[in-house]
Amino acid sequence: MSLLRTAVSLAGLCLALWASTATAAEYSMTPTKDDQKWLLAKTPPAPADNKTTPERAALGKMLFFDPRLSSERNLSCASCHNPLFGWSDGLPTAKGFKSKVLGRASPTVVNAGYTTIQMWDGRRASLEDQAMGPMESMDEMAMNLDSLFTWLQANPTYKASFAKAYPGEAIDKTTTSKAIAAFERTIVSNDSPFDKWLRGDKKAMTSEQIRGFRLFADPAKGNCAACHQGPNFTDGGFHNIGLASYGQANPDVGRFAIKPLASLKGAFKTPTLRDIALSAPYFHDGSAATLDDVMAHYNKGGATKTDLSSNVKPLNLSADEAGAIVAFMGALTTPPKPITLPTLPPN
Amino acid sequence: MSLLRTAVSLAGLCLALWASTATAAEYSMTPTKDDQKWLLAKTPPAPADNKTTPERAALGKMLFFDPRLSSERNLSCASCHNPLFGWSDGLPTAKGFKSKVLGRASPTVVNAGYTTIQMWDGRRASLEDQAMGPMESMDEMAMNLDSLFTWLQANPTYKASFAKAYPGEAIDKTTTSKAIAAFERTIVSNDSPFDKWLRGDKKAMTSEQIRGFRLFADPAKGNCAACHQGPNFTDGGFHNIGLASYGQANPDVGRFAIKPLASLKGAFKTPTLRDIALSAPYFHDGSAATLDDVMAHYNKGGATKTDLSSNVKPLNLSADEAGAIVAFMGALTTPPKPITLPTLPPN
Repeated sequence: MSLLRTAVSLAGLCLALWASTATAAEYSMTPTKDDQKWLLAKTPPAPADNKTTPERAALGKMLFFDPRLSSERNLSCASCHNPLFGWSDGLPTAKGFKSKVLGRASPTVVNAGYTTIQMWDGRRASLEDQAMGPMESMDEMAMNLDSLFTWLQANPTYKASFAKAYPGEAIDKTTTSKAIAAFERTIVSNDSPFDKWLRGDKKAMTSEQIRGFRLFADPAKGNCAACHQGPNFTDGGFHNIGLASYGQANPDVGRFAIKPLASLKGAFKTPTLRDIALSAPYFHDGSAATLDDVMAHYNKGGATKTDLSSNVKPLNLSADEAGAIVAFMGALTTPPKPITLPTLPPN
Repeated sequence: MSLLRTAVSLAGLCLALWASTATAAEYSMTPTKDDQKWLLAKTPPAPADNKTTPERAALGKMLFFDPRLSSERNLSCASCHNPLFGWSDGLPTAKGFKSKVLGRASPTVVNAGYTTIQMWDGRRASLEDQAMGPMESMDEMAMNLDSLFTWLQANPTYKASFAKAYPGEAIDKTTTSKAIAAFERTIVSNDSPFDKWLRGDKKAMTSEQIRGFRLFADPAKGNCAACHQGPNFTDGGFHNIGLASYGQANPDVGRFAIKPLASLKGAFKTPTLRDIALSAPYFHDGSAATLDDVMAHYNKGGATKTDLSSNVKPLNLSADEAGAIVAFMGALTTPPKPITLPTLPPN
């Protein structure tokens, strides 16, 4: 390896004259000091008034799985953020009240605790701020919150669980959203083959996956890390990636509806890529069925005639390079721990 | 106790003249030899061609929880037979395709392996025979079975799981329903306080619960065991219990639609009572919200003017007696084991 490296260095000047892109042989196959920036904190930060405790997470888990939080009593948070599908729902876009097809894909809950940008358009700033949204939406759980809190307050099991989790506090929007947020902060992916490799286990990733990581981060190749950067694979920003759905008659303008800047038209938040292999299909419009399709989109470039800001330059990767990046994304899955259902109070 | 018993015997003739019902003092508070008939076999019987194996149950569990077995891809068997609600759904009557309200309550899967009467009207004779029904029903999972099997056959994880569970057999209606049935046979309630008491643990039930059991079985009191008899609390028969819904304009005739005998008009199968405290609301029409409501129905008697066969004589129990029977039904719950979700193949 180091011999090869020397040879490459000697040829470096010459190579630089005819090729601006790095070759696979130049990539370090062992983690560098700089690579450590991809390591994720063991637990997500929690607000001072909602530190994650076992009691809060346990209560939040009950609420998260309880379909009685919806008016039809057949949708829970877990219906769309389903642990069976990487805490998403396996659908192109979500299905809400009476199976109504909604406009955007259900985002995963995985590692949502590590970001302050909630929802595809970032209109919520914390998990606490987000938690009641789907319950209140008439297109989703369509719940009357007053009757929900009346019911929770009257239920002995929930009453006791709230008292343990938030002693002296009321059972209301504040504590209900806090408990759900506390549970969501326990849904964490930070022990994937990639993490193990970063921590020094050289065998944790295959050589194809390591090469995929380098291509992923290489500005002259995948350039994925331009947006999917840092421990949680997101820049915390919003981008129009030139999906076909943005070229349609009444396109989803995304972040622009929240912040009307021309550059934000059709822009959506950069989602985490951790556990990404578990939550197909992909993109906010669910238009990519597989990670290969995701790579195909970026490789051919995205463009809509009506809005040039949506143009995304083609990557022009070889099939082999795109495949390596997909293989790398497969190395971002933390081996799933068995998910145990909570015990809910009977009717 | 024996002193009291002697006193009661001495007064017996006299008492018999003015009261035909036994008093609580006469009930044995310890299990008798005859009581052993209530003990349930440890595992349900399985057909010779579908012995319950771990591989079959594991495959069945995947299928049972997979919403991709429905056309909308958002309903699984577990949506209506939800472990969170005693393997029912907590609703008066089931909600199917696009939340369509169906005519009957979702029956529990608990101990369904011990009976040959499946469905409220008994139109299916085995779990294997029943399993595909909801998938095919356009009001429920509304699934095209051809596309389901094509998908299962093409999915590497399912393909491997079927090969392990049913080596050499096709992935089709037969093996799919067999696997689901094999999983359902693992959903068993046979270790409740009542079972422990029957096996000799005198403290397993409270004295109120024991008294409730005696009242439950006493032909002159609750007389519940006339129908809810034997280890699984069912006579395997069908009865019209005089619910108000049968008095409506177009009543659900139940078993009569399958077997047109006058005595079966509005008759539904006697459900198990094991784990009954977990699966409110009650009756095939979901009209009783609580077990107290169930007792209230039988206590006042059921009657519809249009069909005298639906008359059920009032029990005329005291509030105390009815309460004891409800307490006994609470002793039929096997402490829930944590339910672990299966790992499903990603999309």
